[in-house]
Amino acid sequence: MTTKPFRAAGRPTTRVLSRRRITDAALRILSHDGFDALTMTHLASNLRVTPAALYNHAASKRDILLWVQDRVMGSIDASAFETEDWHTAVRAWARSYRDVMSRYTPLIAPISVMPITGSTDTLRMYETVATGLQRGGWPVPTIVPTIVALESFIYGSAYDVGAPLDIFEAGDGATEAPVFTAAASAHYGARSDEQVADVAFDLGLEALVQGLAQRAGVATA
Amino acid sequence: MTTKPFRAAGRPTTRVLSRRRITDAALRILSHDGFDALTMTHLASNLRVTPAALYNHAASKRDILLWVQDRVMGSIDASAFETEDWHTAVRAWARSYRDVMSRYTPLIAPISVMPITGSTDTLRMYETVATGLQRGGWPVPTIVPTIVALESFIYGSAYDVGAPLDIFEAGDGATEAPVFTAAASAHYGARSDEQVADVAFDLGLEALVQGLAQRAGVATA
Repeated sequence: MTTKPFRAAGRPTTRVLSRRRITDAALRILSHDGFDALTMTHLASNLRVTPAALYNHAASKRDILLWVQDRVMGSIDASAFETEDWHTAVRAWARSYRDVMSRYTPLIAPISVMPITGSTDTLRMYETVATGLQRGGWPVPTIVPTIVALESFIYGSAYDVGAPLDIFEAGDGATEAPVFTAAASAHYGARSDEQVADVAFDLGLEALVQGLAQRAGVATA
Repeated sequence: MTTKPFRAAGRPTTRVLSRRRITDAALRILSHDGFDALTMTHLASNLRVTPAALYNHAASKRDILLWVQDRVMGSIDASAFETEDWHTAVRAWARSYRDVMSRYTPLIAPISVMPITGSTDTLRMYETVATGLQRGGWPVPTIVPTIVALESFIYGSAYDVGAPLDIFEAGDGATEAPVFTAAASAHYGARSDEQVADVAFDLGLEALVQGLAQRAGVATA
């Protein structure tokens, strides 16, 4: 008599499926192969289990995307809203948000249209931001449009992190676009990719935050 | 004797490949099936030609993406920069840019990191914007970071057009996120999807433009 349960040959006991392991594998697939590569079949094969075994844990790709969203959004650092003034906190949160999304650009499109219902860590992040803004004097009706406007800027900026330095290189067209060509070389100069992305991000973020605060009737530091 | 050239059965004479027809087909594939579906094989089959025939016109997928970029960016209306003050023109251009990109969201990721070299209509659009800003008093070194910051906001806002009204529905989590829940219902109220996206876009755009102008030392109207 043996207490060892039956299992298929070559499948070690440590390979127990869990939300955590499935989410890890989904994120690996997303960042290496993009969004379309994330299918239940590919995910099962990556986890070395049968699709049926995967379906025992997750009813659909939607469930898995919710876990992925929760993991990614939960890794954004909003903690400054608990200790700093709102303006310092918005800066730190937006920078962390952009950095996280720039590592998972294939997730920007789905996350930007995905309801957050059931995504506990995502909701916690939004509650921390909303509470911090309210404490800083932002009227409640201004909070969500402010967050949405900031997120739009953050998502676009996450792509810009990956833009090459020659993105605005006019080539043979330079003579027909003299103003833009001069403006591009004034901006790029001797800067590196990261510096260029950061200059536009810092400028846009400060501009946007200041403009939003003025509209909400909140004083900036 | 006949002057009719040999051709495969069922392939009509009107089906001559051209940059225009290839770009049309690529855009159809992109908007229906997404970015990964745009392969030379799929494109050839959509055009009912052999891959070899397609390669006679375009050396690679990169060539086709450049044509697609040119078509899409060329359809953005920047003409207000030629007749209106810069502030009115920025508003009209940004709105047109967002509307165009919201119809082709699978193109946002590739276009945001794709060099514009050889993309004549794209370059013409940027030259119109840069010239309009310069005429409005924007110092040359501020023009490109200003455009990049606006584009980041526009790309993110293009996704938001497709966001469902229940995107911030907390569900069972509402009791743990009271401030965010109250803020979301204050914002959404009885608005439709389009109205909600427009409210956040208009607010963010005005805020961003005002903040950028202040930083560049340019007066807003």
